[in-house]
Amino acid sequence: MTFGLARRQVRPRVPLRHGEGDRSLLTSTQGLAALSLDALSSVAYGPEAIVLVLIAAGTAALTVTLPVMLVIAGLLVVLVISYGQVIAVHPDGGGSYAVAKKDLGARVSLLAAGSLVVDYVLTVAVSLAAGAASLASAFPSLTPYLLEICLGGLALLTLVNLRGVADSARVLMLPAALFVVCIGGIVVAGLLRAHPAAVVGSPQPVHATEALSVLLVLKAFSSGCSALTGVEAIANSVPAFRPPKVRRAQRTELMLGVLLGLMLIGLAFLIRRDEVAPRGGVTLLAQLTAASFGTGWPYYASNLLVTLVLGLAANTSFGGLPVLMSLLARDNRLPHVFGLRAERPVYRYGVVALAVVAALLLVAVDAQTQRLIPLYAVGVFTGFTISQTGLVRHWAGARPRGWVPRAALNGLGALLTALAGVILVTTKFTEGAWMVVVVVPLLMLLFARIERYYTEVGRELALGTVPDRPRRTDSLVIVPLGGVSRLARHALTAAIALGDEVVAVTVEPDQAKARELLDTWARWQPGVRLDVLESPHRSLVLPILSYVRRMSQDGRQIAVLIPEIQPRHARYRILQNQRGILLATILRSRTDAVVCLLPYRLDI
Amino acid sequence: MTFGLARRQVRPRVPLRHGEGDRSLLTSTQGLAALSLDALSSVAYGPEAIVLVLIAAGTAALTVTLPVMLVIAGLLVVLVISYGQVIAVHPDGGGSYAVAKKDLGARVSLLAAGSLVVDYVLTVAVSLAAGAASLASAFPSLTPYLLEICLGGLALLTLVNLRGVADSARVLMLPAALFVVCIGGIVVAGLLRAHPAAVVGSPQPVHATEALSVLLVLKAFSSGCSALTGVEAIANSVPAFRPPKVRRAQRTELMLGVLLGLMLIGLAFLIRRDEVAPRGGVTLLAQLTAASFGTGWPYYASNLLVTLVLGLAANTSFGGLPVLMSLLARDNRLPHVFGLRAERPVYRYGVVALAVVAALLLVAVDAQTQRLIPLYAVGVFTGFTISQTGLVRHWAGARPRGWVPRAALNGLGALLTALAGVILVTTKFTEGAWMVVVVVPLLMLLFARIERYYTEVGRELALGTVPDRPRRTDSLVIVPLGGVSRLARHALTAAIALGDEVVAVTVEPDQAKARELLDTWARWQPGVRLDVLESPHRSLVLPILSYVRRMSQDGRQIAVLIPEIQPRHARYRILQNQRGILLATILRSRTDAVVCLLPYRLDI
Repeated sequence: MTFGLARRQVRPRVPLRHGEGDRSLLTSTQGLAALSLDALSSVAYGPEAIVLVLIAAGTAALTVTLPVMLVIAGLLVVLVISYGQVIAVHPDGGGSYAVAKKDLGARVSLLAAGSLVVDYVLTVAVSLAAGAASLASAFPSLTPYLLEICLGGLALLTLVNLRGVADSARVLMLPAALFVVCIGGIVVAGLLRAHPAAVVGSPQPVHATEALSVLLVLKAFSSGCSALTGVEAIANSVPAFRPPKVRRAQRTELMLGVLLGLMLIGLAFLIRRDEVAPRGGVTLLAQLTAASFGTGWPYYASNLLVTLVLGLAANTSFGGLPVLMSLLARDNRLPHVFGLRAERPVYRYGVVALAVVAALLLVAVDAQTQRLIPLYAVGVFTGFTISQTGLVRHWAGARPRGWVPRAALNGLGALLTALAGVILVTTKFTEGAWMVVVVVPLLMLLFARIERYYTEVGRELALGTVPDRPRRTDSLVIVPLGGVSRLARHALTAAIALGDEVVAVTVEPDQAKARELLDTWARWQPGVRLDVLESPHRSLVLPILSYVRRMSQDGRQIAVLIPEIQPRHARYRILQNQRGILLATILRSRTDAVVCLLPYRLDI
Repeated sequence: MTFGLARRQVRPRVPLRHGEGDRSLLTSTQGLAALSLDALSSVAYGPEAIVLVLIAAGTAALTVTLPVMLVIAGLLVVLVISYGQVIAVHPDGGGSYAVAKKDLGARVSLLAAGSLVVDYVLTVAVSLAAGAASLASAFPSLTPYLLEICLGGLALLTLVNLRGVADSARVLMLPAALFVVCIGGIVVAGLLRAHPAAVVGSPQPVHATEALSVLLVLKAFSSGCSALTGVEAIANSVPAFRPPKVRRAQRTELMLGVLLGLMLIGLAFLIRRDEVAPRGGVTLLAQLTAASFGTGWPYYASNLLVTLVLGLAANTSFGGLPVLMSLLARDNRLPHVFGLRAERPVYRYGVVALAVVAALLLVAVDAQTQRLIPLYAVGVFTGFTISQTGLVRHWAGARPRGWVPRAALNGLGALLTALAGVILVTTKFTEGAWMVVVVVPLLMLLFARIERYYTEVGRELALGTVPDRPRRTDSLVIVPLGGVSRLARHALTAAIALGDEVVAVTVEPDQAKARELLDTWARWQPGVRLDVLESPHRSLVLPILSYVRRMSQDGRQIAVLIPEIQPRHARYRILQNQRGILLATILRSRTDAVVCLLPYRLDI
């Protein structure tokens, strides 16, 4: 899932001169690198997911791997052609959320949004788990620490994304190309060899616990569908391509389809021919790597590369989720704070939230990729179905020349992906898919509730109407002070500039000290009255609160001006200011006064 | 350590009618309950601490327990008489920190403060660890969970103290009385029996690894000194007693001394006579309990009571440390925030800090009381020595009639406690006392640095002098707005009341939308200019920041008035306001403008 990835990674931050020469837009090949890592890296866990289901019926059942994979590849073909049409119809990009909002109405778009959120989280978790497994295949001593590796990788991604990534398609080109060459090499070398070059991992006893039933094959199919996650990313990001955008994007989608299809079928063929069964401590892909390349340095290099690419695939979610969240915020379906993408401190909430949820998931499944697979893909296929259905609706509405076969193609895509989605949910329901079935509606409910709140706020604020003119009133500025000092002078200067009337106020339970302060005040003659408040309970804040409330009753605009000492060095902050902040917080929540904070900068 | 306990627990919150009839002041017996639980509860770990040292020289070495305890009791006699004089000279109470500040100068008072802070933390940790051990003695199945019990108890204390305790001497009377009766009963019943009623715990093999050397006896002595912690609490809290305060406080101190002394010697005698050695899973006190009462319900009741009293002793630190911190804050030696005792949210920092440090300590020593003993008592004895030395200095300065023998007595006290302190540090240095030797100076350094900062601030603010009069200037109020709405009207009404000139400002990168907004604005005619800012980087905050900076250059008082939507229900807060708060934070740290926050309350 890389919904909108290119927007963040590639879309330039300054207005563009459009044209062929614009180097920040993508060629087809660059687009493949920037937008397809998530899809391509699925080969690291997709075929293995099939095998791990089929092995329950014994080693002989592994022969079914290839047919299952061929069905999945068939689905891929439909998806690629279908998404070629999505690209043509929606050259502005936008994922299933945007398409659904336009063509299918509010409720379906909420479904799309909920599915997307779930899948971003799962992409992070699955990619990291598979990456850790790949790393541990190369270095078996790491096997007991899969969870730690995942969490370490997650922490790294989080830090990188909190600091902001200066990534670009160019950076991703090399790993993407190497990855395709590497997997291609594994397949070709495997086809050329009669016998495996090497066998890695410890043998695992195979207990056939089930017969090879239709249900088991369907389960294998739904697990294998995880290999198709990510093929929608290119269609989401058409604006990131150089003109002719549509043609380039379609070409990239086709390249992705061909490469992914060949890799999946090739690997499935090798699994079938060599009867590759799960062995302890190494991934299926690592076994195939060893069989093709032996266990020398190519084996290590290949596993490290797979780990790297899976890590980059996890990173795409960190790019994509904030974009989706900002779209939802703009539609009043998430707190507006997520719409402030350019303000760093705010953008960080999304990154941290994603990291925390992914970490919890990884801990819950103990970093076992295969325990995440039943949750994965449900959301992706929901998105597939929504996109295709939206397009059918589009064709039926616009009715351009020759729309019927196109609508039929998209309708077939919608039907097949919906069918696959139903198979996914039903066969994997008890193994985790139920969680998606619960979480997605909850997210939809959340989005809807938030939208309702913002609608109500808009009504209360009378948005879209012209309100009465502002009133003109007098103002009283209240200045809480601790004593006579330069700080007091600074605060009163500001208060006199702002208020029609100014009054200083201080809290002093000790009567002798109060008299002394009033004497000093009289000598100072600042031209402002000082009210001394008692505090029977030694609180500084409560007497001022009730004073402000008392003063607020004559219809004047009340402001409370709180001077704050600001030391130059941040480490001294804790020594100052707390009282003012506390007072400001309480006044803001319990009075209608304007609360004014005035910095007084120190040299220390 | 219960420095100042009574202040918080007992000192009334409203002004008093002083007099004999004032029921919120303490009688001698009430004083014993309110101020001595920490000292009395030391019998639960003090004698055991001696035995655990001596056992290294074999079971025979346990005969030395009684002589060592007699020396400690002798020290107790000197302390009690000496503190009787402290009470007479300092009827205003105040612990070693106050005494040192008055009579011994700044540096010694910092030493006193550092020692006190360390001891408050250790009191919490030691009391909880000993309480858990006592509980596990009654219910052996809890033995593997000592740390969990301690942390649970700590969490409970923290919660109770965060909510504020409505405790009083009356509440403590019953457990204190029961505790004294219970320990007294153990001693008397033990003396009456020729043979133990029951033996509990699993036998532990005793390996004599050392000879009974002078060093070992000194170590046993210094461990046993932990039994004396807390005897200074009464002298710290003289104002909490009913008149005649001094006489009552002295009587209470005497009662404490007699009771504590008898309990310690009685227990030590029983240990010697019955050769009570450490046995697995039960405390020494629990063994003595079983020996006297058998293992029926009195055994369980007694252990539970000891646990309860130790928990209450731990609670005294939660009362005492915030008082000390507020004194330090008033002396500019801690952030002033700790001086705001009556403001709940602020007072909480101290409670949470204490809980966190105590929890870390408990985890570090795995809730083993005996691993905390080497750290404990060093600080207490530093306080003892400082108090006595201060009094010697006082006598030498005031020279009342018959001052020489009094000075001599306090001098003896100072000498003996100093000697004990040196023995404590040297014999236990490698076992943990070094930590105190490191931490206390660091705390002193921290206090001194903070004091230096506040002095510098006072200089910069010209505290104590009369500054120039406030200047009179014009004001410009800048109002960041998102559009035309009731919120805008509300904000402009306040701004017009406050500013000589008002200007509204909005950030809108989209030119069409900007024109539309200006049209609506023109139709509204609020009497205020609207400036539309571009935002090339999509930030909302940065354009306003630079606008404010630009406007700040003509000498006028600049204020930025930020309207904040405040939903009625707290759960909706996250949906609002973040942008305003973010803007306010950035303006406060990067401009000298007054930042004004104006609440706009919603009905939702």
